[in-house]
Amino acid sequence: MTYCVALLLKEGLVFISDTRTNAGVDHISSFTKLFRFGIEGERFMVVQTAGNLATTQSVVTRLQHQIAAQIEPNLNTVGSMFEAAELIGASLRRVLKNVSESPEQEAMYGCSILLGGQIAGQEMELYNIYPQGNFIRATLDTPYFQIGEIKYGKPIMDRALSYYTPLDQALRCSLISFDSTIRSNVSVGMPLDVMVYPANSLKLPKGKRVTENDAYFQEIRKEWSDILKQGLQNIAPPTTDYFD
Amino acid sequence: MTYCVALLLKEGLVFISDTRTNAGVDHISSFTKLFRFGIEGERFMVVQTAGNLATTQSVVTRLQHQIAAQIEPNLNTVGSMFEAAELIGASLRRVLKNVSESPEQEAMYGCSILLGGQIAGQEMELYNIYPQGNFIRATLDTPYFQIGEIKYGKPIMDRALSYYTPLDQALRCSLISFDSTIRSNVSVGMPLDVMVYPANSLKLPKGKRVTENDAYFQEIRKEWSDILKQGLQNIAPPTTDYFD
Repeated sequence: MTYCVALLLKEGLVFISDTRTNAGVDHISSFTKLFRFGIEGERFMVVQTAGNLATTQSVVTRLQHQIAAQIEPNLNTVGSMFEAAELIGASLRRVLKNVSESPEQEAMYGCSILLGGQIAGQEMELYNIYPQGNFIRATLDTPYFQIGEIKYGKPIMDRALSYYTPLDQALRCSLISFDSTIRSNVSVGMPLDVMVYPANSLKLPKGKRVTENDAYFQEIRKEWSDILKQGLQNIAPPTTDYFD
Repeated sequence: MTYCVALLLKEGLVFISDTRTNAGVDHISSFTKLFRFGIEGERFMVVQTAGNLATTQSVVTRLQHQIAAQIEPNLNTVGSMFEAAELIGASLRRVLKNVSESPEQEAMYGCSILLGGQIAGQEMELYNIYPQGNFIRATLDTPYFQIGEIKYGKPIMDRALSYYTPLDQALRCSLISFDSTIRSNVSVGMPLDVMVYPANSLKLPKGKRVTENDAYFQEIRKEWSDILKQGLQNIAPPTTDYFD
């Protein structure tokens, strides 16, 4: 399995992906699922993938090849983030058609893709692209998308996150969402790939790979557990009728 | 969907079930999924159900009928909690065989059942009974079971709960696990059925139905959200390399 999350906030974009892939419990590997595209000062895009690894690698390789071989359209020449989402959706459909002869096979080889970014002179945008090649866009009401093993890490996001949450606090919230998922589900694993994009910067961030040994991640894992345990002790004890 | 949780702790047993059932989004109803059995001073059992409602109602009705008609064995006469689990597993198999002619149909009509309780002179026990009729027992290492829509509410249980957690604190933790699930998933809904059994009491608790308007549940929902938001603000901000 996989867990990827992407946030579209007033202050910028946050992307985090785990790196664990598995085909059964005895074939576990580490692959990046977060890919950066763009041109410094002109456009910035991140693609995150979940699902069949052969499919997602093929889609990403096609996107990279289109740029290298200057095949039009490509992610460096599309006129909007919407067109970028259309291009990725179309690539995904072609890859899936090549390997599947039935809807059941397509479901087996399917994948989900998140696309976020900004082109100079336009707004930041975030898309969730389905295996069918169509997609939805994040809004102020729903400022984040998840793909993969999404349920464990959703409650903290639903409670603590809004479009107006400051970037560094949204990053903390997302890292805790990952920690919650990793603790409860063995198919999502470290290291994590993290990338933060400040609104309108049009920079290409290097991104950070967060390993088990990362001092900050270790610190908030421990701090967060302490906060929850302490919080549980501090909230009011149940009224006596709960014990009737 | 459904969410049920049952805890086997040093100080006693805790059971919580939601009451929402749905067959598609336009056929939503409220049914109890928590059933008490036993004889005051002699034995106490709770059965919780998730899955196909026709199947679970049929299993529970059979268990109740066996007692009323004094058909042996029944939950009031079995010699151990293990035998109670066997009896329920066998009932479940009979119900499923009656309605299904293929493994696919069986999967469609299947259900999961939690059984917890205590018989005089014996230890408290907690079982997770699968649609196949076999079952596992909770231990000190794994003192709780969930059935139904389990993922949203698992992280808080995994972080905060152990066999030695005091009963009232375990109840708080479980209620928060339900609140997290209800906020993130519309197929799990209020009211909740709650039952707490103090170890070796051999009493039959009345149990409590927790509605949206329950003052205590409203209070901890709000308190917990505040604790999480405050906690996120208080933990250390990410190191600068997260923004590279």
